[in-house]
Amino acid sequence: MKITELIAAMSGSFTHPSHQNYIAQLSIDCVIFGYQDATLKVLIPKLNFKGDFYSLPSGFVRQEEDLDQAALRILEERTQLANIYLQQFHVFGNADRHNERFMLDLLALNPQLTGPQEEYDWYVRRFVSVGYYALVDINKVKPQCSELDEKMEWIPVQELPKLILDGAEIIAKALKAMRLHFDDHVVGYNLLPETFTMKELQQLYETVFDKPYRRNNFQKMILDLNIVDRLEKQFTGAANKAPYLYTFKPTSNK
Amino acid sequence: MKITELIAAMSGSFTHPSHQNYIAQLSIDCVIFGYQDATLKVLIPKLNFKGDFYSLPSGFVRQEEDLDQAALRILEERTQLANIYLQQFHVFGNADRHNERFMLDLLALNPQLTGPQEEYDWYVRRFVSVGYYALVDINKVKPQCSELDEKMEWIPVQELPKLILDGAEIIAKALKAMRLHFDDHVVGYNLLPETFTMKELQQLYETVFDKPYRRNNFQKMILDLNIVDRLEKQFTGAANKAPYLYTFKPTSNK
Repeated sequence: MKITELIAAMSGSFTHPSHQNYIAQLSIDCVIFGYQDATLKVLIPKLNFKGDFYSLPSGFVRQEEDLDQAALRILEERTQLANIYLQQFHVFGNADRHNERFMLDLLALNPQLTGPQEEYDWYVRRFVSVGYYALVDINKVKPQCSELDEKMEWIPVQELPKLILDGAEIIAKALKAMRLHFDDHVVGYNLLPETFTMKELQQLYETVFDKPYRRNNFQKMILDLNIVDRLEKQFTGAANKAPYLYTFKPTSNK
Repeated sequence: MKITELIAAMSGSFTHPSHQNYIAQLSIDCVIFGYQDATLKVLIPKLNFKGDFYSLPSGFVRQEEDLDQAALRILEERTQLANIYLQQFHVFGNADRHNERFMLDLLALNPQLTGPQEEYDWYVRRFVSVGYYALVDINKVKPQCSELDEKMEWIPVQELPKLILDGAEIIAKALKAMRLHFDDHVVGYNLLPETFTMKELQQLYETVFDKPYRRNNFQKMILDLNIVDRLEKQFTGAANKAPYLYTFKPTSNK
């Protein structure tokens, strides 16, 4: 067994020198959104490389694996979360979306990723990448670095660093697609606790769409969408002042 | 011979001279919509093969070519139309979306497509396919058969034959995406002549969305969308009875 295979077998990691098991020149990039302190954030790996290089959690597709399965696997590897909301949104296929010099330098610093010289070639070729976005509960995520990462950070979408390749475009397209799906698919249920007030839901919408809503209009919109159930008020000393709690309807998860 | 070269040679991936210019295991499927006689139609190739086998116009991506460029090239090859509205809408990546036996039989009937046995392998592997839809003026299209096709037909979306692989799913997703984009992008301008009446525009919408509109509501919706200009009435003997003509605003092409 080659040392590279041994390492891969031990780490069970997303990169793998036995490249014949993967579809060549096809990758998946994940834009993982979380919501915290009324702020929309993205999980961003910082590469283990001289200088500040940021990328997106990504991986490859196994020959026997559905594309969606691969995305779920990659997401689980990087967040330790299973069964979360994941949506394919765009394929990024420009011919110039690779940087051979950069990759060679990066791989030279991470010799465990490659064996013989020709395995480098697998990495440095052009990749067509399928973008998926996920909506997760930040508190449940345990970010996992790949072998290429120094660390992973939750960064507000308004404060993103410069990303390698077309990372900025991928996040912009993910955000646009997520907003488009937001009402239809009620994807927000992943971002809030089990029960929430109308005010908390409004804050989530204001953050996602980056615009204010008027309270009455917002409430009417949500009730018209028919996506939440109002719960009984809990008895407390000042029950009549406590806001109603809501929960997403079970059938609205799709 | 190094083991990786051997594997590459055995698998017939992008190493073979005939195919090394293309990205292996990646294809493009085009759903080409046209509008005729108040009917939405799709351009469907019938395969040159025993029995009735229908597919979608498709092709591969050259190494030096952007994904969008490849889709435009394939579309032009099959319709002789350049610069038409084309939209990526979904990637189809299930692991089971290939049929080795069928492809081998099909290729055996078309020996001009392949040389040595290993070139067959390039075709029979699993393909991840990027779906694009196009909206074209049927009268301007000159359908071109590929080497695999017996003929190409415009078939109403309501009367589609059984398609090979996941063709039915691809068309269904294309239709859904096209409807979603229809208002936003005013893609309809490809489907109508330069000038048209409000009634003709309403008929187009009713066909695309497969539902009736009330005349007054429709007119208000279109005027609110601010996508058309009303033209001066042409002088005719019965000018006061002639309907107004409209044209799409030039800036609404995107």
